[in-house]
Amino acid sequence: MGAVRALCRALPGPDRDAAAAVRARQDRLTKPPGSLGRLEDLVAWLASWQRRAMPRLDRVEVLVFAGSHGVTGRGVSPYPASVTAQMVANFEAGGAAINQLARAAGASLAVHALEVERPTGDIADGPAMSEADFLDAMRKGYAAVRPGTDLLALGEMGIGNTTAAAALAAGLFGGDGVRWAGRGTGVDEAGLARKRAAIDAALARHAGDPLTLAAALGGRELAAILGATLAARVQAVPVLLDGFVATAAAAPLHALASGGLDHALIAHVSAEAGHRALAAALGQAPLLDLGMRLGEASGAAVAIPILRAALACHTGMATFAEAGVSDRA
Amino acid sequence: MGAVRALCRALPGPDRDAAAAVRARQDRLTKPPGSLGRLEDLVAWLASWQRRAMPRLDRVEVLVFAGSHGVTGRGVSPYPASVTAQMVANFEAGGAAINQLARAAGASLAVHALEVERPTGDIADGPAMSEADFLDAMRKGYAAVRPGTDLLALGEMGIGNTTAAAALAAGLFGGDGVRWAGRGTGVDEAGLARKRAAIDAALARHAGDPLTLAAALGGRELAAILGATLAARVQAVPVLLDGFVATAAAAPLHALASGGLDHALIAHVSAEAGHRALAAALGQAPLLDLGMRLGEASGAAVAIPILRAALACHTGMATFAEAGVSDRA
Repeated sequence: MGAVRALCRALPGPDRDAAAAVRARQDRLTKPPGSLGRLEDLVAWLASWQRRAMPRLDRVEVLVFAGSHGVTGRGVSPYPASVTAQMVANFEAGGAAINQLARAAGASLAVHALEVERPTGDIADGPAMSEADFLDAMRKGYAAVRPGTDLLALGEMGIGNTTAAAALAAGLFGGDGVRWAGRGTGVDEAGLARKRAAIDAALARHAGDPLTLAAALGGRELAAILGATLAARVQAVPVLLDGFVATAAAAPLHALASGGLDHALIAHVSAEAGHRALAAALGQAPLLDLGMRLGEASGAAVAIPILRAALACHTGMATFAEAGVSDRA
Repeated sequence: MGAVRALCRALPGPDRDAAAAVRARQDRLTKPPGSLGRLEDLVAWLASWQRRAMPRLDRVEVLVFAGSHGVTGRGVSPYPASVTAQMVANFEAGGAAINQLARAAGASLAVHALEVERPTGDIADGPAMSEADFLDAMRKGYAAVRPGTDLLALGEMGIGNTTAAAALAAGLFGGDGVRWAGRGTGVDEAGLARKRAAIDAALARHAGDPLTLAAALGGRELAAILGATLAARVQAVPVLLDGFVATAAAAPLHALASGGLDHALIAHVSAEAGHRALAAALGQAPLLDLGMRLGEASGAAVAIPILRAALACHTGMATFAEAGVSDRA
C-alpha cells in the first residue's frame, strides 16, 4: 500500500497553459462569450488533463470491471450472484446496454472479469479482500489503461456491489446504511433492511485509512476502477466516472490527495439513492441527470457524445474575423 | 388564422399501442426494469409520435430559422442587428456552432432566412407582424418539414429575439419584463432595463388569443418554428425544441390545444433567465442542463445523441432469454 500512497502524494496537476489556450480561442469563436456554457468548460478540462492545447477524442475507451461479492449471501439483491458471470458473457456476446452505448458513442469497449468465480469475503463478517488481493485488483485496473487513450469511461458489473459501494462511501465520508444504501437493481423493502444492516455491521468491523477501507469494504471491480483512475492521472487521460459504484470506487483518490479526482468527472447522477450525496461530497456537479441506475459504465457512455459535441465546436467553428461577423462594440 | 385554429382542434394524439410495445420489449431486455431511466421513456416517446413500435433515427434534421427584429432599435442587445445576416452567412459557410453540432449528431442542417433584410415592427410601438406576414412565416416553417423525417431539432437566430420571446411568454403565461427578460447574448444592466421596458410597453399595447399574440409580439423565425412544430405533429415527426426562444415560439400550440406540445420535447434548459419558468409552465422537464444560451438549435443538437443512445439500447440489447441471463425470482 505504501507505493500507492507515495504515488498519490506526487500526482501531476492540470496543464494550465493548455486550458488558457482553450479559453483564448473560445473568446474568438462566433458566439457570445460563454454561451456554450458547460461545453466550453469541458474542452478546457480535456485540455488540462490531456496536457495539450487542442484536445482530441480519437481514442475513447470504455472499461468495465466485474467482480463477485460474498455479501450477496445476505440477500441484498433481487438477482442471484450467478448473474455477474452471465452478464460478463452477455458483454462478450455484445448483448448488453454498454455494448450498444459504446458503439453509439464511437468508443471501444474492454471488459475485465476479476476472478468472478471467487467472491470476495462477506464485508459484514470480515474484510472483502486481503491487502495482497486488493493490490492485485488495483494493479489489473492500472494495467488496463492503454497509453495514448484520449478519454476513458469507467464502469462495473457485480451483483451486490451497491452494498460494497455504500459501505465504502460511509467509511470515507461518514454516515450509515440508512444514509448510503439504495435499492440497487431493485431490492424490496425487506432486502433494503438487510442491506442496511450488512453495511452497518461492516462499518462496525472495519476502520482505517482510505486504502484500508477500500480493501475491507469494496470489491475487486472497485479496486480496479481505483487503479485505472490512478493510471489515467499518471498517463494524462481524462476520465468519465459512471454511477454510484464507480464514483465510490474512485473516491479514495480524493481522500488520499487534494484534487486527486480533478481529472475524473462524474458523468451522470444515478437514481441510486446515495449518488447525489456522494457527488456533493466530492464537490462535483454531474453532467447528466437521466434517472439511470444500470451501471456497466452506461451513464458515462451516454456522456461521451456531449464531450464530442463540445470538442467539435471548439475545433470546427469560425472566429469572428474568419467569418466576417461583427463582434460586440 | 381560422385554418390554423381548426387544425389545432384536430391534432393527432400519440400512438399508445406503439408505446406499449416499447414498454413490453424493455421489460425483457437484460437490465433491471426501469434501470435505463429516462432513456426508456425517450424510446416510448419516439414510438408514440413516430407511430411505430420500433422507432428509427435514420433521418434526423436540424432546422434553423432566422429573422430580424425592429425592437433592436431600442438597444436591447449588445450586438448590432446586422449580425443576424452575418450569422446566416456563417451557417451557410459551415462556421457556426450548429454546423459542428449537427454533423457530430449525424443530422442534416437546413437554414431558412426569413426576409432578414426586412425587420419586423417594433413590438413596443405596434405589432411585430400583420396577420398576413405572420401566416406567411408560419407557412414557411410548416413547409420546411420534410415528410419521412424521423426527428426534428428546431432552433433560431435573430438579434433581438429574446426580447420578442420574453414578451410572448409574458403574453401567454402572465408576468412582465422583470419576470421574463434575461441577458440574451449578454446585454449589460442598462440594456436589460431597456429590454424590460420594451417588453412592458409591448404587453400594454397588445392582447388577444395565442396566435394574435404570436403575430404581435413574436417574429418571423418564431412563427416559422410554430409552423414547423405544427407540421411535425401532423406528419408524425417528434420534435426537440432548443432554448428559450424556440420554446416560446412553440408555446402557442400548448395554449391552443391540450397536449399540443406532447410531441415536442424541450431538449435543454437554457441559461437564459426565463427558460426554466417557461419549461415549468409547459409542464416539461428538459433533458439537459448545461448552461448553454446560444440558440441556433445548439442545445437541441447536443440532445440528439441521447436519443440515439436510448434507441441503440432498445434495438440492440439481448433479452434475458436470448442471453441466458437469470431474471429475478
